[in-house]
Amino acid sequence: MTSDLRPFQTVSSRIAWSCPWYRVRQDDIITPDGRPGVYNVVEKDDAVWIVPVTAEREVLMVYQYRYTIDEWCWEVPAGSVKPGQTPAETAREELREEVGGQGGDWHYVGRFFLANGICNEVGHIFLATGVATGETHHEAAEVMHVHRVPVAKALAMARAGEITDGPSALALLLCADRL
Amino acid sequence: MTSDLRPFQTVSSRIAWSCPWYRVRQDDIITPDGRPGVYNVVEKDDAVWIVPVTAEREVLMVYQYRYTIDEWCWEVPAGSVKPGQTPAETAREELREEVGGQGGDWHYVGRFFLANGICNEVGHIFLATGVATGETHHEAAEVMHVHRVPVAKALAMARAGEITDGPSALALLLCADRL
Repeated sequence: MTSDLRPFQTVSSRIAWSCPWYRVRQDDIITPDGRPGVYNVVEKDDAVWIVPVTAEREVLMVYQYRYTIDEWCWEVPAGSVKPGQTPAETAREELREEVGGQGGDWHYVGRFFLANGICNEVGHIFLATGVATGETHHEAAEVMHVHRVPVAKALAMARAGEITDGPSALALLLCADRL
Repeated sequence: MTSDLRPFQTVSSRIAWSCPWYRVRQDDIITPDGRPGVYNVVEKDDAVWIVPVTAEREVLMVYQYRYTIDEWCWEVPAGSVKPGQTPAETAREELREEVGGQGGDWHYVGRFFLANGICNEVGHIFLATGVATGETHHEAAEVMHVHRVPVAKALAMARAGEITDGPSALALLLCADRL
């Protein structure tokens, strides 16, 4: 695919705001038509979404309360990649902590951007098949119930728009041909 | 589905940082286990993603440079809902401006959250079939090329993980059964 060189020039860059989970980088830029402008980029660590399937062909899912939107969402296990971890390490850790999943055969499905207009966050999608289940270890800020959802039902929920967490729906649909 | 009542208490709320496109609301909260904490919510207007299909069964797509990640992405037309607009009005406007699309039969496919761990943004997905093409009207900050991609190829690209804009990939896959 032919593409232009980097179309925006970055003149200067500073951190405009930050919290322990992400920060806003504010860049002075020159737009492609030569005008000065500002671009704010929410900088956030990569994250992982895991589609964990048991030997009984059930997807281990969570029904989770999300404070940002004051709604409950059906989701697959997910979490931010901590410094020093690889996405694969985070994926195994989140699977164990959120739904008590262990072992299984792991496949890297792909990467995507969550909201590339404002944020640099990359999501990595993993499929884990033949997952065994054990104890969960939820964090205090996580309000969730674990459910075992048959593969066909999980895919039907995604296709019907019932999985309102976009990355979780995308993860399930990207795994559909392998389930 | 049974669910608990709102599990977090909001004690106080203020705007911690803002720019013309979004802002960060900082809430003092009480976590479900009774401890004080802070939750930062990126507040952003709703947005729309449109899957526009011509009578020739081609999807009008854009290959767009994204400053946040310094990458080019395959995407479907999209944009933020401006104050006073409905999502459907924004969808028709973005279709016209980004890819020169007009008319067609419109279907509301569903809504999803882009990044519900940190942001309240809602994405609305529309399918438009029988779309006619005309002139585009790109904004200065938009660096994109318009392409007509056969339906089967667009879906194959999404399934292969080549559409790295998560919402665009989700929009295409959610429309797959109707294309």
